[in-house]
Amino acid sequence: MNSKPRPSEDEIIANFFAPLAGRAGLGLRDDAALLDVPADCELVVSTDVLTSGVHFFADDPPELIARKALRANLSDLAAKAAEPRGFLLGLALPGDWTEEWLAAFTKGLAEDVACFDCPLIGGDTVRSLGALSLSITIFGAVPKGKMVPRPGIEDGDLLYVTGTIGDAALGLRLRRALASDRVWAETLSQPARDYLLMRHFLPLPRLALRDALRGFARAAMDVSDGLLGDLDKMLALSGMNAEIALADIPLSKATRQALACDASLIEPILTGGDDYEVICAVAPGDAAAFEREAGTLPVTRIGIAKTGADKPRIRDGEGRPLAVSAGSYRHF
Amino acid sequence: MNSKPRPSEDEIIANFFAPLAGRAGLGLRDDAALLDVPADCELVVSTDVLTSGVHFFADDPPELIARKALRANLSDLAAKAAEPRGFLLGLALPGDWTEEWLAAFTKGLAEDVACFDCPLIGGDTVRSLGALSLSITIFGAVPKGKMVPRPGIEDGDLLYVTGTIGDAALGLRLRRALASDRVWAETLSQPARDYLLMRHFLPLPRLALRDALRGFARAAMDVSDGLLGDLDKMLALSGMNAEIALADIPLSKATRQALACDASLIEPILTGGDDYEVICAVAPGDAAAFEREAGTLPVTRIGIAKTGADKPRIRDGEGRPLAVSAGSYRHF
Repeated sequence: MNSKPRPSEDEIIANFFAPLAGRAGLGLRDDAALLDVPADCELVVSTDVLTSGVHFFADDPPELIARKALRANLSDLAAKAAEPRGFLLGLALPGDWTEEWLAAFTKGLAEDVACFDCPLIGGDTVRSLGALSLSITIFGAVPKGKMVPRPGIEDGDLLYVTGTIGDAALGLRLRRALASDRVWAETLSQPARDYLLMRHFLPLPRLALRDALRGFARAAMDVSDGLLGDLDKMLALSGMNAEIALADIPLSKATRQALACDASLIEPILTGGDDYEVICAVAPGDAAAFEREAGTLPVTRIGIAKTGADKPRIRDGEGRPLAVSAGSYRHF
Repeated sequence: MNSKPRPSEDEIIANFFAPLAGRAGLGLRDDAALLDVPADCELVVSTDVLTSGVHFFADDPPELIARKALRANLSDLAAKAAEPRGFLLGLALPGDWTEEWLAAFTKGLAEDVACFDCPLIGGDTVRSLGALSLSITIFGAVPKGKMVPRPGIEDGDLLYVTGTIGDAALGLRLRRALASDRVWAETLSQPARDYLLMRHFLPLPRLALRDALRGFARAAMDVSDGLLGDLDKMLALSGMNAEIALADIPLSKATRQALACDASLIEPILTGGDDYEVICAVAPGDAAAFEREAGTLPVTRIGIAKTGADKPRIRDGEGRPLAVSAGSYRHF
């Protein structure tokens, strides 16, 4: 009856995406974008694919789906000490997409494009016979030779993590509202619940760690699939392991409250993923300078790297190794 | 019973994708890749998303799905006169994927990685609750200021197209094997049918046009959504139109045979898409040099650009404008 024709891909680009385009995007009128990399810089590139039902729920607010997708990619740049330069957006829209959905999605994206000064420089919008999926490819610049690698940790290096761990995993639990989580969920105050939900929906890419990483980190990665698994992955590349005291892992007040009510939450906290914090290794002699350079961004020393092929171990207050079954959350 | 556990994302990377990685891919052990762009070059970037049932059939040979996806992206670089430097692969695998499928997909990809000297430098592999989708982001280098834009056509410029038009659209018809196509399909020889199918499955990115484009083209784009629609899109950006004689549009022998049997095929030939040829505009004074520089790569002059806002028109042998309903194939 009152159905109007769906906008074409060209109309979607002109009406929704062109306002987000930077100069490199050539007004999004070409299939290609042109990236001018400063002569003394290298380009860091990262890509993430997110699919409905796996990485987000179909009925999540579109603004937040957009912002989380971009922030997850910004977090990859943050861990490499790179400065955002722009991104490409690939969008596969299911048959029942609406202009309202896309307008909200674009509005969320626009907020973070402005917030992180990271323009849209190109993309592709196609039809999906299945669910919504989106892919973001992000570009960052780093002075030549200054990208912080993932391997390269040496025996005795101190391991640091930014922010707090486990909030997003508990936020996801609150989002799913399973009966099994009702007890601890109901002991939390509304602000504590909101905080955890916010940490699930809106990661904080730690771009502010850039100078501290460039100056003093030997290796770094972002924690996206759970602290324990990602730590293992990073240490193994250098033939290292580590012993970590549970008490040293930074937890937010809300997460500590939840854990006090239900001790089994330690597993999702350590392995649940979506933290988007940065872990890095710093030589002991550089620790003071690293902490100083991190400034107001909270960084916490959680352990020391040791040569060895076995997995990093976490010990509780009595010195007993913690048994955690799943190493990391598998999006796959 | 004899089901073995599915490989994890890390195992997929190590077993399937790492052998395709170039130096910039850091062994695919990091979430990020490092692109070192030569100091006198700019980076051209393009991305395509392909979804099962829309851009390919779920039961297409995996080798060919992989190769076509990469070649479609290489074609974007070809139209910008850029040299391939590497690509990122985003893969969302449905629940029923098999290692055999992925091995074949990777084998096809490996062939074209070698053939076009375009290494895999990173990516992301995730689970899809819906159908298979893949996204490729490709990187090419072009000397500073030498990227051929899409706008910029001037009144009187000659319009050229590489290769032949319509083969892939007819190949798709053969692939679908609809009853309505039986008559013309059966008049074709087996080699002619194979040729059209091959043109559907394996585009030929026209990277060899690079020097001719850099030297003499004012504007260019690749024909991926149908000659007529893409020509219209390119000309409109410069406020131009064109008159084109049907007889001047280069058709392969197989396509001419099919058209002789069924005149209505002119519509898919001109609007069907997936040609992956390059259209470009050349100033009349540069035409001879452009053709010389194109060398053995066939380029055909199909018309002259004229100032004007109406759509480009194609005239048949009697000078009558051809009525074609759909301007271009919409993947969306």
